[in-house]
Amino acid sequence: MKKGKWIWYPGDLEIYLANRILFLRDYRGTIEPPFWKIDSPFCNVFFIKEVDLKNPEQIRVLSDAEISIIADCQKGVLACDGDGKYTLPAGKYTITITAYAKNTPVPTVRVDGGVVSDESWYVQLDRYRGESKNVGCSDGFQSPYKTIFKYKDVQPVCQERINGGILYDFGKESFGYIVFHDIAVPGSAQVFYGESREEALATEDCETYDKVVLKARQKQKIDHSRGLRYAYVKGDAEWASVSLSFEYLPLQKKGEFACSSELVNQIYSIAYYTFHLCSRETFLDGLKRDRWYWGGDAYQSFLYNYYTFFDRDICERTLWALRGKDPVTLHINHIMDYTFYWFISLSEYLLYIGNTNFLKNIWPRAITLMDYCLSLRNKEGFLEGRRKEDWVFLDWAPIDNTGVVCAEQLLFVKALRSMAELAVQFSDFERADFYKKEADTLLEKTLSVFYDAEKGVFWHNRVGGVINRVVTRYASVFAVNYKLLDEKECLHTVKSVLEDKDILPIVTPYAKFYEVVSLCEAGKLDEVCKILDDYWGGMIRLGATSFWELYDPAAADHLSMYDRPYGKSLCHAWGSSPLYILGRYFLGVVPLKAGYSYFRVSPKLGSFAYIRGTVPTPTGTIFVYRDSSTIEVENHTRTDGELVLDDGRKIPLGAGKKVKITL
Amino acid sequence: MKKGKWIWYPGDLEIYLANRILFLRDYRGTIEPPFWKIDSPFCNVFFIKEVDLKNPEQIRVLSDAEISIIADCQKGVLACDGDGKYTLPAGKYTITITAYAKNTPVPTVRVDGGVVSDESWYVQLDRYRGESKNVGCSDGFQSPYKTIFKYKDVQPVCQERINGGILYDFGKESFGYIVFHDIAVPGSAQVFYGESREEALATEDCETYDKVVLKARQKQKIDHSRGLRYAYVKGDAEWASVSLSFEYLPLQKKGEFACSSELVNQIYSIAYYTFHLCSRETFLDGLKRDRWYWGGDAYQSFLYNYYTFFDRDICERTLWALRGKDPVTLHINHIMDYTFYWFISLSEYLLYIGNTNFLKNIWPRAITLMDYCLSLRNKEGFLEGRRKEDWVFLDWAPIDNTGVVCAEQLLFVKALRSMAELAVQFSDFERADFYKKEADTLLEKTLSVFYDAEKGVFWHNRVGGVINRVVTRYASVFAVNYKLLDEKECLHTVKSVLEDKDILPIVTPYAKFYEVVSLCEAGKLDEVCKILDDYWGGMIRLGATSFWELYDPAAADHLSMYDRPYGKSLCHAWGSSPLYILGRYFLGVVPLKAGYSYFRVSPKLGSFAYIRGTVPTPTGTIFVYRDSSTIEVENHTRTDGELVLDDGRKIPLGAGKKVKITL
Repeated sequence: MKKGKWIWYPGDLEIYLANRILFLRDYRGTIEPPFWKIDSPFCNVFFIKEVDLKNPEQIRVLSDAEISIIADCQKGVLACDGDGKYTLPAGKYTITITAYAKNTPVPTVRVDGGVVSDESWYVQLDRYRGESKNVGCSDGFQSPYKTIFKYKDVQPVCQERINGGILYDFGKESFGYIVFHDIAVPGSAQVFYGESREEALATEDCETYDKVVLKARQKQKIDHSRGLRYAYVKGDAEWASVSLSFEYLPLQKKGEFACSSELVNQIYSIAYYTFHLCSRETFLDGLKRDRWYWGGDAYQSFLYNYYTFFDRDICERTLWALRGKDPVTLHINHIMDYTFYWFISLSEYLLYIGNTNFLKNIWPRAITLMDYCLSLRNKEGFLEGRRKEDWVFLDWAPIDNTGVVCAEQLLFVKALRSMAELAVQFSDFERADFYKKEADTLLEKTLSVFYDAEKGVFWHNRVGGVINRVVTRYASVFAVNYKLLDEKECLHTVKSVLEDKDILPIVTPYAKFYEVVSLCEAGKLDEVCKILDDYWGGMIRLGATSFWELYDPAAADHLSMYDRPYGKSLCHAWGSSPLYILGRYFLGVVPLKAGYSYFRVSPKLGSFAYIRGTVPTPTGTIFVYRDSSTIEVENHTRTDGELVLDDGRKIPLGAGKKVKITL
Repeated sequence: MKKGKWIWYPGDLEIYLANRILFLRDYRGTIEPPFWKIDSPFCNVFFIKEVDLKNPEQIRVLSDAEISIIADCQKGVLACDGDGKYTLPAGKYTITITAYAKNTPVPTVRVDGGVVSDESWYVQLDRYRGESKNVGCSDGFQSPYKTIFKYKDVQPVCQERINGGILYDFGKESFGYIVFHDIAVPGSAQVFYGESREEALATEDCETYDKVVLKARQKQKIDHSRGLRYAYVKGDAEWASVSLSFEYLPLQKKGEFACSSELVNQIYSIAYYTFHLCSRETFLDGLKRDRWYWGGDAYQSFLYNYYTFFDRDICERTLWALRGKDPVTLHINHIMDYTFYWFISLSEYLLYIGNTNFLKNIWPRAITLMDYCLSLRNKEGFLEGRRKEDWVFLDWAPIDNTGVVCAEQLLFVKALRSMAELAVQFSDFERADFYKKEADTLLEKTLSVFYDAEKGVFWHNRVGGVINRVVTRYASVFAVNYKLLDEKECLHTVKSVLEDKDILPIVTPYAKFYEVVSLCEAGKLDEVCKILDDYWGGMIRLGATSFWELYDPAAADHLSMYDRPYGKSLCHAWGSSPLYILGRYFLGVVPLKAGYSYFRVSPKLGSFAYIRGTVPTPTGTIFVYRDSSTIEVENHTRTDGELVLDDGRKIPLGAGKKVKITL
């Protein structure tokens, strides 16, 4: 029998997996559930496939749900031959498998046989409903209810007796479950976790701990996964040793980068590690605290992923989880900007990955989410945060985000344009036109209210009709990155705002990302090399083994945040933006058409003597090398591209071709 | 501590309870799941209450969900004092209880203390969302996850050895679980169920059976509830006796009726029993086969309930379950008429019960369901069934329901008017006006196309623009019952259609109901008395212990249906319409304003020498007696009403008043 793939109602398995981790957040023993609407999977679905069989054929159906099978060429349901096997009659007809999740969270099914379950099946919520969706499907799941993770045993690199306890150091940021070995004397134990040594030893202030009762046995694992480097263990039990059952998503490293700077190579390696740790059920913000999906953090993670793991499944899981189900009740994560990023992420997914089944399935939810945004506009067409329910985030900097915030309107413009691009992809030209027009109108209005063309700056916001004449960096970086100004204006605002040290600096790697991208877009790669050294290098010089949620070089304390001494996450996905910067702007690889069906390569050295790397695409990798005298590109994909030289010359990069240019 | 009430997200517990029974349907060992979209409860909700406490106060929180409590007067979550107890600080502030249903299907909570959970709490899906709903709440649940049913042991009235098995007869239609007692020899047993003796003995054709392995023990219960009168048991095990664990919803009989006809008293009693058996998680169609909620069957059950149990909870559970959640994907139960009945049921709920919290909570879903209907209209404004996905039912009679069916449009008119009445209740006059206008336009259009005023008939349908000049009873009865014609026209169509024996007769008690109501509305109670004798009396003369799904006096076989020899349900809720007819039209009690806040009593004798009975209301009962010379009415409610005599005279019936009139 041929083995089929697991299939499900698209979005439901993804949302279920994502929900599972949302509820694992705790703070010192107290559960901290998410504060937004959580959707549940449909419990009863119909999987449908047309078959045309010359002879009767036996299939085997695997499912945790209760199933019944109807072959519409005959009356009633198919009898089971036993052991999950059914005999399909010969003929051309439709099979419907009803799956009801009685004792399981999501109805999923796998069909093995001549007829097998795969992407070609449909799924419906109403058996007789004409409209149906492509099933959710992935090669990645062996069984949706087994874990998607892998494990390895990790030993502490050193241990130390302090104040009647033992401090175990696993050498670098890690994730998993503490395991006690050879427990000779049963009793209680408390495990205090720390991303820093200080945190683990601060038993009254560390963010997470576990209290367990150890029994006299060879091995006992704590049933709670934690982000940690250190574990400080106290208790009256006695054990021989402690290890970590390290849990990780088995992602394949497809993207590579190396250059003449050893520090940047180290930054790249730590960024890869940080990003891998935070890539789990979905892209997560960080390891220690929330472990939630957040639209802004995820927006950047999608981009990192396109230059590293190029994993389709985690992108789709994250896009589904962020979006949730209809009806829309609030912005994604309660944050207005995060809703906008979702649309932009979806259009970038189209460009980089472009899996049509997924896009078709999620498209209706993109439309309803945009309907929601459009319905909230004020009389002028601007979107403002409403009362306590909409959070306007942008960055963890002391900024006033009340009233009409300029940067938010620019993100809204880009979101509308993203929807227009997607609509074109679905040949829905009427809708594309509508979104395009709305974007143009909003952009014009925003510029007329907030943009000072002479100074090259944007005013931050307007409250009660009065412009708050404060300049921040956010609107400028969005205007540059999303090409909302012409080239000359872009360079002007980069100079007037980004290069003005007196303007409130950005403190999170998150917002730093947008700033660095702006500099890249403005061709200032030397400056970017300096920022890599200063900002990311700065964290390494302070001992970072993974990149942080926030790094203020001027700060005395690098552990506190949110008014808590160890509140800051020291392993935060958004710290990994060099992955994207180096792949997108130094190796210079970028898709120009949906699903990488056409791409451009324009490698840039910045301050490096050489760069070398590999960028993954859906059909293979692209190898790039450049030094002061040569450029080499190898197209190991099945699609065409072009190499663009510094002087604008274009050299075709046919599928399978290698090109070497002497400069 | 004062005991609170269980609270939940409105609709979710109701939908969960209803789903549970939907999936119990099987046909000879094969599960038959429902073929429409099934919604799941939200797993994470926020229960909210403003408190004002002079002193700190301890509360106890009961829940199967994982909870955390935030008192917004302080930072962080409340610490648990142990054993589910928490101490609320003094002051005026808001409590938020987050409940996450990790290992339980619906998050529900009960708070005991000085502060207790009750109808005054709110619930939200997003913690920071301004808009909130009244909680779902009921006195009826001791704990939502324990059964809502009660049990009693019932012994067979006789048993008989036949063909190597034993036939147990429980004497009348029953429901529950077969129990084996004193199993001396373990082994297998097969139980074949029958609503009739014939069915139980037809081991190859009976609709339901169970196969069990009996162990040597004192007692073994089959873990599957069944509707049955007979159980035929075969097997190689040996047992001493068999009983039935009878399962029922503990409803209080609040309505009563008696009259001079012993047959009608017997009909009333069997109708009550039939209706009670079919009133469970929701109002069900019947006991043996589907055990599902159906919009048409339920429409009548609501009305029966208002004159019998007057149970609020089962009405609300049924209305929620039928409606499900947004988005709307298809008509209720896939049946267009059933969607219309839902709106009418809701407006009748307003009149009879009128619980404001419930109505407020469900109102947004009524609007979206009506939006769905309005969006499906054709260019002329008519609603047609689309392809295979919309079923136009009306009745199990051989009628052509393709194209534009007149009766459906009349139901749509009444549904729109029902929505207008509800909108007025919510002071949404703009919407009320809109629905009213749409109803008037549709009625005018329908009459112009289908109504022949001269003949007093409606043509049944129009296919491809061509009127099908067939007259059926359905449009006429709706026109009369919902007063869509004037009084003279009503009497004309009653005479032309209802009293014309050549027009296709109605075969289900379901459609019979609408016909009898028409006769009542036309004042033809003598005729109705005759129908009671003939039609319902007919079933009793054939040995019915509960009323049937279908009764055709002319048929030779009363057990077959759906091409199966025992397909017909012999205990079907819609057989119980005498409960409504006798209460509404003979005792003559009817609410005129929301929640029975004003009512009318106009008792009628028909052919009876006397009638006597009680009708429940939200605030007490109304007693009515009439014979040829006197009328007595006792108003035991807390609201006013009026007694209307045959000559139109009105006599006030103040709260608590008794009136005796000599005719």
